Amino acid sequence: MKPQESIADKVARKLPKKLRLIRVARGEEKADVVFKNATYLNVFSNDFCHGDIAVADGLIAGVGQYSGHTEIDVSGRFIAPGLIDAHIHLESSLVSPAEFARAVVRHGTTTVITDPHEIANVMGVEGIRYMLQATEGLPIDVHFMLPSCVPATPLDESGYSLDYTAIDPLYDHPRVLGLAEMMNYVGIVNGDADVVRKILASQAHHKKIDGHAPELSGADLNAYIAAGVYSDHECSSCQNALEKLRLGQFIMIREGTAAKNLRALLPLLNQQYYARCMFATDDKHPLDLLEGGHIDHIIREAIACGVDPVIAIKVASHHAARYFLMNNKGAIAPGYLADIVVFDNFRSFQIEQVYKRGRCVYADGEVLPFEAPAIDPLLAQQAHDTFHLAPVTADRLKAGELPVIGLVPGEIITQNCGRADAVRPENDILKIAVVERHHNTGHIGLGYLKGYGLKRGAVATSIAHDSHNIIAVGASDADLAAAINRISALRGGIVVVENGAVVAELPLPVAGLMSDAPLEEVNDLLESAKAAAHAMGVPPAVDPFMTLSFVSLPVIPALKITTQGVFDVEQWKYL
Amino acid sequence: MKPQESIADKVARKLPKKLRLIRVARGEEKADVVFKNATYLNVFSNDFCHGDIAVADGLIAGVGQYSGHTEIDVSGRFIAPGLIDAHIHLESSLVSPAEFARAVVRHGTTTVITDPHEIANVMGVEGIRYMLQATEGLPIDVHFMLPSCVPATPLDESGYSLDYTAIDPLYDHPRVLGLAEMMNYVGIVNGDADVVRKILASQAHHKKIDGHAPELSGADLNAYIAAGVYSDHECSSCQNALEKLRLGQFIMIREGTAAKNLRALLPLLNQQYYARCMFATDDKHPLDLLEGGHIDHIIREAIACGVDPVIAIKVASHHAARYFLMNNKGAIAPGYLADIVVFDNFRSFQIEQVYKRGRCVYADGEVLPFEAPAIDPLLAQQAHDTFHLAPVTADRLKAGELPVIGLVPGEIITQNCGRADAVRPENDILKIAVVERHHNTGHIGLGYLKGYGLKRGAVATSIAHDSHNIIAVGASDADLAAAINRISALRGGIVVVENGAVVAELPLPVAGLMSDAPLEEVNDLLESAKAAAHAMGVPPAVDPFMTLSFVSLPVIPALKITTQGVFDVEQWKYL
Repeated sequence: MKPQESIADKVARKLPKKLRLIRVARGEEKADVVFKNATYLNVFSNDFCHGDIAVADGLIAGVGQYSGHTEIDVSGRFIAPGLIDAHIHLESSLVSPAEFARAVVRHGTTTVITDPHEIANVMGVEGIRYMLQATEGLPIDVHFMLPSCVPATPLDESGYSLDYTAIDPLYDHPRVLGLAEMMNYVGIVNGDADVVRKILASQAHHKKIDGHAPELSGADLNAYIAAGVYSDHECSSCQNALEKLRLGQFIMIREGTAAKNLRALLPLLNQQYYARCMFATDDKHPLDLLEGGHIDHIIREAIACGVDPVIAIKVASHHAARYFLMNNKGAIAPGYLADIVVFDNFRSFQIEQVYKRGRCVYADGEVLPFEAPAIDPLLAQQAHDTFHLAPVTADRLKAGELPVIGLVPGEIITQNCGRADAVRPENDILKIAVVERHHNTGHIGLGYLKGYGLKRGAVATSIAHDSHNIIAVGASDADLAAAINRISALRGGIVVVENGAVVAELPLPVAGLMSDAPLEEVNDLLESAKAAAHAMGVPPAVDPFMTLSFVSLPVIPALKITTQGVFDVEQWKYL
Repeated sequence: MKPQESIADKVARKLPKKLRLIRVARGEEKADVVFKNATYLNVFSNDFCHGDIAVADGLIAGVGQYSGHTEIDVSGRFIAPGLIDAHIHLESSLVSPAEFARAVVRHGTTTVITDPHEIANVMGVEGIRYMLQATEGLPIDVHFMLPSCVPATPLDESGYSLDYTAIDPLYDHPRVLGLAEMMNYVGIVNGDADVVRKILASQAHHKKIDGHAPELSGADLNAYIAAGVYSDHECSSCQNALEKLRLGQFIMIREGTAAKNLRALLPLLNQQYYARCMFATDDKHPLDLLEGGHIDHIIREAIACGVDPVIAIKVASHHAARYFLMNNKGAIAPGYLADIVVFDNFRSFQIEQVYKRGRCVYADGEVLPFEAPAIDPLLAQQAHDTFHLAPVTADRLKAGELPVIGLVPGEIITQNCGRADAVRPENDILKIAVVERHHNTGHIGLGYLKGYGLKRGAVATSIAHDSHNIIAVGASDADLAAAINRISALRGGIVVVENGAVVAELPLPVAGLMSDAPLEEVNDLLESAKAAAHAMGVPPAVDPFMTLSFVSLPVIPALKITTQGVFDVEQWKYL
């Protein structure tokens, strides 16, 4: 382990670079790179400024008249600071952080703040460490908020349970910025000491605490904010967002693959409120990453809806930097990181070039090649070995009368559809199972599912929020067992089985959540698997896997299923 | 020495208070204090909100409907967060920090950021420690920036010389926020390693660095900012302020006793720029403290000049809190300190009540009594024993031909008025002496002064920027010696002597800079001394002591005097 660097050593180490920065700023020495004739958004004066932007050792040295070893003429173009995604779970992309970076850097993203909530539920602190290693030295900076809710609920059988002491040793990591979305707002407002301690610990480290409290309001919201939760990204109504903003929370306007709140929150994007707003995606799925863009997409949408481009770009960069105390990001000015985006104009807002610390990472439609970070072999092995369960036989999945969970198209809430005593695909009654896979407990929760439409075979996935056990649905116990066992054999993934044979599959061997393959390949396999599931009867309005992934999240009404069986969220009891 | 508290201990210590805050916010438990029917400035939504403000253990628990053990009806009044002076040298008030606090708290000031530059030049690190102890537990919070330029120039014979290692052990103090105004901008832009190291050390501690660079511009300004100087309070023109703002510096709009920049910088106080602005006074002299107000005065002036009151109040509170990363100050919202100002209306902006951490500190025209902090006896003794010089005889002040420094009324710059060979009061030629008083070196710098007007006697002061030796001016060597020796006997102060006898004096026994007496008494003595000096010939346009205090500052053109004699600032050499 590296010993902590003394202040004296740090001062000595940084001196030569600082002295060079001063000489370059003064024009006594040539810059490494100069963006000549730049028209850039000045986030301080809220207008556009002109000049040459000089870069030395990755930092902006000055803006004015400069010459450099490399000179890039950017006349006729516009420059903005690199874009920032204030809150995402990288695992949602199903690919490695390196693949994610390759996908988003072309969209002008130079920094994301991730919450490794999913992998932490599987691997605990080692999962967070894995993501820290997997994000080292990428062409985007990946900062971390430490997962606050592992497991998400006391009902969950996750891989690990993390209290404040478990995550405490990670706060010193230079890329850790605080405590991630505190979903357990019920625990906070009820004064659950174990939950409140997590906030106190982050505050003791002088770090941020993000929130997650959909529609929380009034006295409970006061209590949640007084406890120390500084932001929220779960605002789907402007009224709720404004109440939170007035009480001091920063609002992360979320526009991702699953949840889209930009339109509802457009009234925040004006002079009166925008200083307290950022953009976030929360999740980005493979197809959306390939086709939809990232933060640049949100800017385009906002501008198309009439938002002042200066406001949109500041919300997309400067404000997240300020909130997270990343004081060298989010602006084009001396001393800031040369994280620079070159774009065409304000109507189409197409990113043409991207520079990270002054180094070109995207130009002419191509992301420049970079090496994926190395991961400790032992840690990599651990991440690829997270399935600990015995093979499941069809016999173990036999069931008599059980509750029926009814899907609601396009929603993650479900309905209570009474009870059933057998699978009846012709009546859209399928069997659903959640199989504990972390500690080989043999726990299997069983129930019935309505609205999924499968006519034959079975589907299974190891992405099952938030504990990521194996969730499977099928028309026969034999195919159900085959799908579950195939997931286990793959060490994670998504599979579609018919008559005992795999007809489509996407291996996700990293903690059962992510692939090691390129994004395009992952997307192709995922789309093929979706097509296979649809071909077997899943209606077009239902995403075969994402829908399934949320049926195991026992905080969303009405019925959900865990390794213990079907749970009634409204009555807060197993049925 | 107190051992550093572990995170676990800190979490445990803070838990009960946090749980109570949550209960009070939720309305499950009565608040300590509730401000009923409050109309308060919401610095987040930039409008006025209404509700009851509940306080528990000094923190705002919630805003809504609350009841408390004490309820204060504030209907018909307005509430704002406590006001903040972003930069001051407390020593300039000539009184103890407790007396200063007593004077400003009635004006709604709840926080000041001080730079103990003057006392550090006399006492070194012990001077900073003295001020830290003297500001503990006052009804205002006093935060510190560590002096960056002790001595101010290599020409100075100050009490101490502080490099980055000397001040480093103070960064861990919870009230130290960074490195104070980096006046040595010449050293920075020339890459003087000793100077740049001071910035690197503050950055290594994740602290702020304030600037001081009048009219610095262009490539030099880029270099200064790239080095890591985040703010400036020396903007006297809007053009210079805008250049600094555009390059990323926060602008402290200074309006104090000596320098007044508000009117010149009014164009910054609008939607486009105000987010990067704060208010500061830099210095506040006794009479101004008693009669002129403090930050509230700047707000009144700004509003009278047409500035939006919301903008004026945010610049006076919220923005300084954000800049200095005091995240629990500058807003009325859950989790923030209950530093609250009650005022009448936006035209007169008269402060009626002030609350610090929810406790009333000013109401009904009276500051509530408080105890002045205790100082370590040894440290107090050191502070009262900073004059180390042998008595000066009139013989030691004899001089032949020497340069003549010419005062310019109302300015701190001077003129070169040639040479003289003797004192001639009838021609307004007086003798001026700077007597080294820290290390008994016996160094005495001599010269002549024109424009001071004294007809007889002598005047001396131990406030002599920035090294605070004894500076004296007189019509006779005997009176000069008497004035100097009286200063020494008093262990600091201001004296007026005629025919060997003291006709007026203000003792300043704390480091030769501050009194232990009440502000009113200090002001009376100071005004009497001024009157005595004026009666002896000093013209009304010349402040007899403040003018003298700056004649020893060898960075301001044209001629200045140090313990080594008269110095030509433009030629940078002794004459």
